[in-house]
Amino acid sequence: MTDISAEMLRIGDAARTAATELAYASAAHKNTALLAAADAIHARTGDILAANAQDMAFGTAKGLSPAMLDRLRLDAGRIAAMADGVRAVAAQADPVGRVLAAWDRPNGLHIQRVATPLGVIGVIYESRPNVTADAGALCLKSGNAVILRGGSESFHSATAIHAALVAGLVAAGLPRAAIQLVPTRDRAAVSDMLRMTGHIDVIVPRGGKGLVGLVQAEARVPVFAHLEGICHVYADGDADLAKARRVVVNAKTRRTGICGAAECLLIDRRFWEAHGGILITDLLAAGVEVRADGDLLSIPGTTPAAPDDFGREFLDMIIAARIVDGVDGAIAHIRAYGSNHTEAILTENDATAARFMQRLDSAILLRNASTQFADGGEFGMGAEIGIATGKLHARGPVGAEQLTSFKYLVTGDGTVRD
Amino acid sequence: MTDISAEMLRIGDAARTAATELAYASAAHKNTALLAAADAIHARTGDILAANAQDMAFGTAKGLSPAMLDRLRLDAGRIAAMADGVRAVAAQADPVGRVLAAWDRPNGLHIQRVATPLGVIGVIYESRPNVTADAGALCLKSGNAVILRGGSESFHSATAIHAALVAGLVAAGLPRAAIQLVPTRDRAAVSDMLRMTGHIDVIVPRGGKGLVGLVQAEARVPVFAHLEGICHVYADGDADLAKARRVVVNAKTRRTGICGAAECLLIDRRFWEAHGGILITDLLAAGVEVRADGDLLSIPGTTPAAPDDFGREFLDMIIAARIVDGVDGAIAHIRAYGSNHTEAILTENDATAARFMQRLDSAILLRNASTQFADGGEFGMGAEIGIATGKLHARGPVGAEQLTSFKYLVTGDGTVRD
Repeated sequence: MTDISAEMLRIGDAARTAATELAYASAAHKNTALLAAADAIHARTGDILAANAQDMAFGTAKGLSPAMLDRLRLDAGRIAAMADGVRAVAAQADPVGRVLAAWDRPNGLHIQRVATPLGVIGVIYESRPNVTADAGALCLKSGNAVILRGGSESFHSATAIHAALVAGLVAAGLPRAAIQLVPTRDRAAVSDMLRMTGHIDVIVPRGGKGLVGLVQAEARVPVFAHLEGICHVYADGDADLAKARRVVVNAKTRRTGICGAAECLLIDRRFWEAHGGILITDLLAAGVEVRADGDLLSIPGTTPAAPDDFGREFLDMIIAARIVDGVDGAIAHIRAYGSNHTEAILTENDATAARFMQRLDSAILLRNASTQFADGGEFGMGAEIGIATGKLHARGPVGAEQLTSFKYLVTGDGTVRD
Repeated sequence: MTDISAEMLRIGDAARTAATELAYASAAHKNTALLAAADAIHARTGDILAANAQDMAFGTAKGLSPAMLDRLRLDAGRIAAMADGVRAVAAQADPVGRVLAAWDRPNGLHIQRVATPLGVIGVIYESRPNVTADAGALCLKSGNAVILRGGSESFHSATAIHAALVAGLVAAGLPRAAIQLVPTRDRAAVSDMLRMTGHIDVIVPRGGKGLVGLVQAEARVPVFAHLEGICHVYADGDADLAKARRVVVNAKTRRTGICGAAECLLIDRRFWEAHGGILITDLLAAGVEVRADGDLLSIPGTTPAAPDDFGREFLDMIIAARIVDGVDGAIAHIRAYGSNHTEAILTENDATAARFMQRLDSAILLRNASTQFADGGEFGMGAEIGIATGKLHARGPVGAEQLTSFKYLVTGDGTVRD
């Protein structure tokens, strides 16, 4: 390819044309394509594994970390799970055409607000090959064309999975350009995508802070993303001790590498006076490094927190911890150090819980539940293309419903305005 | 002022702080402020008229057109209408705290999606002083802080109206910085606003194509706007003649300077064969210049259309007109020349109307009704801050409801994730 920008424009034009047709494709038509794509993924397991072996060899030679190689690795089980994920998206209700609101006006006009696709979604991701299938399926379900740009490490795997998705489109008679994969590893393609405001309606970056930060800083196209999940758990003086112990350990340790993992524990002074350091000793016993300040440092095994340990996303078996004065102290800390992603309060006091939920503006606020529930699947959305912490359009887990816009349909009877 | 950027950052910081407090202000509290502001506008009629006289003298000396001077001019009636508009906003249902959706999960989690304010809105407008009151009231109602930047022509009028709004805030004990007016005519303040992504969540430009185009091109902050309203009316072969005649004349001539005015008439060849040029002769009789091509030029009084008359926003007693082949011809024309604002179809055929509404993606699509209904008041929203043609977040008339975001509130009982 001699001119990447020209190729990206060609891809963008094809996506726009496909989006126009997808916008009025029936639910049955889209589901036929999704089920055929799932079957094709399953039938091509051998091809996909061979492509993945190429990527694994490339990644090993490049010296990728064991964690990154694990993300990249596919096996028959993971491929079957990918196909099942596409079938699960097909089984969801169609988000397009929903009547979001309807009302009548005194002059006889009947007004409906009806869900429509957004248009063209750009997805920029790193090493997980399954994003190809998940994002492709969610965008098709919501009537959007998608331009996928996978990481260079997963190039062959993504290409093989993409071919299966296209087979599904072809089987259903839908345009092949509904799901396109950028056919080059050149990073210039990413820079182009971020500026293609005439061709792409939204960019969704899936990956680490480096990728997301770059996209947020450089994109002229709107972005659905979260830069960090600096999730807080606040144990209130009116918390139930057993529930608090259960939730704190789960929020930190169930999986430490996901954006909903707790990164900071705030303990109400009244809780501390009543129960001492039990939440901290539970965490230490679970193998967590606890970086604390103030009175909490009197607990054996804690480590003094550096100033920047508050407001830090560890994504590891490490947590920051601090004593605060009541719910207002917790709110002030979270406003200062949080990332508007997910925070939990542990309390039996309804008024305190209401204050926490009203005065904080994170995308997800939980009461007596683990921050690890910050996930589209756990919310019942079937799948998610990502989690957003911005305030425009989509917020929290982004499923097929959040990939829609709307239009107004107004019916009169020769009605004119005075 | 020696450093405009420093002043704008101070304004931005104050707006953020006010927004945090407004986010949980009660409906009653906000309405108290709005009603006190309406009373203050009324009570200060003399001050506002005196300030407006300064602006009128400045505008006359500057050689503003009679139309612009009319937009700028206030009298006791217009000031009373402004106060009534603020009272009408107070009377609306509170858009914040609405439960947009609620559901339960098998593990016992109860999930609610609840409306929240967006945060800080920036409004950049031209000569109409009443935007100060309308935008200030809508933003306060929706729990948002607002930074208003009026046109230099209406500087004194806007300052006097803004002082009345602040009097309302003070009477209700809400932060003065909830509604701020940029206290300088320097255009550098606008450039700053367009880049204050950390302080402003959305910019709403209100004014002509020059202003909106500048804002859309330069803003790093998201924008709710429409650049143009190139609205089409399509008279289908199955139209009812009487309804079609009524709607076409109203859509073009009721008011020609608004964005919902029709700019292009598309006539189905079957309509033409059945009824001839009646719609054109009606328009000519109403004093409209009809720029046509093809067979329509055989109608006495029509003018040959230049190529760029299609897709042009005349905002005047001029309309482009063309014969098309059925609804698909109309759809193709509108896709090529439209601005995704508002289009109307005139037909008694349900299938044809459904095809028009399904295959076009304008913010507003009407059947047998005038495009002049493209207005928040006509939609029953009480007031609008503008009309948006983008697909993210807000679309069509933007009222208080569209100035909200949402968050998820999740309640468990010590619930942890497996």
